[in-house]
Amino acid sequence: MSGFFIIKPGVFVTVSLIISIDAMGGDYGPDSTVPASLDCLRNNLELQLILVGNEQILAPLLEQALVEFKGRLSIQHASQCVAMDESPAKALKNKKDSSMRVAINLVREGKADACVSAGNTGALMATARFVLKMIPGIDRPAIMSSMPSVFGHTHVLDLGANVDSSAESLFQFAVMGAEVVKALENITEPKVGLLNIGEEETKGNEQVKAAAKLLENSDLNYIGYVEGNSLNAGDEKVDLIVCDGFVGNIALKSIEGAAKMITSVMKESFGQNPLTKLAALISYPVLKAIKNRIDPRLHNGASFLGLKGLVIKSHGGADALAFKTAIQVAEVEVEKNVIQKISEQVELALSRREST
Amino acid sequence: MSGFFIIKPGVFVTVSLIISIDAMGGDYGPDSTVPASLDCLRNNLELQLILVGNEQILAPLLEQALVEFKGRLSIQHASQCVAMDESPAKALKNKKDSSMRVAINLVREGKADACVSAGNTGALMATARFVLKMIPGIDRPAIMSSMPSVFGHTHVLDLGANVDSSAESLFQFAVMGAEVVKALENITEPKVGLLNIGEEETKGNEQVKAAAKLLENSDLNYIGYVEGNSLNAGDEKVDLIVCDGFVGNIALKSIEGAAKMITSVMKESFGQNPLTKLAALISYPVLKAIKNRIDPRLHNGASFLGLKGLVIKSHGGADALAFKTAIQVAEVEVEKNVIQKISEQVELALSRREST
Repeated sequence: MSGFFIIKPGVFVTVSLIISIDAMGGDYGPDSTVPASLDCLRNNLELQLILVGNEQILAPLLEQALVEFKGRLSIQHASQCVAMDESPAKALKNKKDSSMRVAINLVREGKADACVSAGNTGALMATARFVLKMIPGIDRPAIMSSMPSVFGHTHVLDLGANVDSSAESLFQFAVMGAEVVKALENITEPKVGLLNIGEEETKGNEQVKAAAKLLENSDLNYIGYVEGNSLNAGDEKVDLIVCDGFVGNIALKSIEGAAKMITSVMKESFGQNPLTKLAALISYPVLKAIKNRIDPRLHNGASFLGLKGLVIKSHGGADALAFKTAIQVAEVEVEKNVIQKISEQVELALSRREST
Repeated sequence: MSGFFIIKPGVFVTVSLIISIDAMGGDYGPDSTVPASLDCLRNNLELQLILVGNEQILAPLLEQALVEFKGRLSIQHASQCVAMDESPAKALKNKKDSSMRVAINLVREGKADACVSAGNTGALMATARFVLKMIPGIDRPAIMSSMPSVFGHTHVLDLGANVDSSAESLFQFAVMGAEVVKALENITEPKVGLLNIGEEETKGNEQVKAAAKLLENSDLNYIGYVEGNSLNAGDEKVDLIVCDGFVGNIALKSIEGAAKMITSVMKESFGQNPLTKLAALISYPVLKAIKNRIDPRLHNGASFLGLKGLVIKSHGGADALAFKTAIQVAEVEVEKNVIQKISEQVELALSRREST
């Protein structure tokens, strides 16, 4: 893989930071991916970006930038686009020259260290899995993201790659997720919780109960069951919450709905009459600070874990600010060599279990 | 059953409205249950309440009220209490004279038309199920409640009575829940949605996909899959959302956590300095209106469905206002004869399926 330099067997050092961008993906395509990319290039002088998409569309947009960021920015032509509502199977079969597929190919070929896309989640996962293959020992991939909490934020996986995850899968999610949290948060022993409907031992379904046993017997800093409120506002800080994708996706969207409802009620209440509008005006700096604290755009960038390459999924509706956050997640995961660390930890965890 | 008068075979008319109150249950016991009860007696002149609990504690608190509400208020002594963290099995075995058990017994004996408790959920469900028994044709009970939404509110079940619900159970939840929504909302054809991780047919786990087929072939006003955000802020109003208890409980608590986080961020932001405190003061009426709109206390009162009697569960931490809301849910469900209607609908749905 490009970007890694072997100094002695088994030790890799990152010498480059090349990210491929699915420039056509998402609801806004280049309108959001291009300004976000340029902003990232400005902020990180080590960063190199390959924008993948229709050259006829991208070239005019990047004319100046290609000069400004010479040697760090390039265009890779791809003739097709995957639609946001296209079936994963059809995208995989018919869109072999899509911006998404080509961006992922660059990772497989070692020409990029990670890929970022705001495209169709199902198609991205199916394509990434097909092109990059799974890390040996991992049964199923998972989608991981962070969400704002009273403590700052919490990382959660799986957010919808799988339904009906087995205890073994949940355990593997924890091993993989812990490596990402270590990288993104700069902590050595992230606290890992298992999402359940109560904190007592007897609670939960069979998979969760069995996963708890696996986690208790692992090297992870497992703190036990946590409930839904721990995602945003538990009594105690938990760094990583592990759950099945059906449950995680519904929890995530429930939280999005709650935030949307509260925002909508606030807008309605503050917009009711001249007096309430005045109150809104006076409270503007505070309301803005609140919005910034819980802004989902600042928590954009979900990691697809379990693959032999880094793929970061941005929210489909991401604007430039949100897409920039997703690229930054990719930058950190490349810099911290997350894929390598996940592979090592998975191997360790499996060999540890075999030896007991 | 008391409260019903047979005018001709098969036709029942409610002639009384008697509710038993587990006066010792919840985090605050009589401090919350007694004022809530008296308030309800004041508001509804048809209502009769039996407060169940330690007579030595309750009698002094109710001395005046027993005169004021003569004939409509009484005390039923119960020597024991179920602790909030007591195991359901132990409560069932050792607490045969608990305020919770005696309150439920009154429903079975026909001396009350419904029971309201803020006690331990697991113990309440186990006791209610043991004492009242299930409605024939219903496999498992479910917990149903409403939550605030941009459209007013949405009703949801199951919120945690079951894990790993079968498609048949999910279907039964829908049949039961629809009757409660009809009663509480005064609508004839509530829109029923099935909670899933996407709206496409291919999404979801096996149980959900199979439940969708049962619902499509039913007389219910089934609108299809809905996602987590529909609980509070879907694109379309849905009156009733059906899900497995593991998923529903986690969604509910996730929403509670999100609301708590946003409230906490608001408090922090408005409390930061004299200027922001001034803004809070000026915005006070608006902030209060917002709080009222999303106040969980106004959505208190979960229905235990599937039992041969009405049991309403109040949040354990309910204050008098919240407990009053729970009693009012019981009042409406008694007045609308919900248990009878559920039994009829279940029988209808089952016979309809057998005949096809």
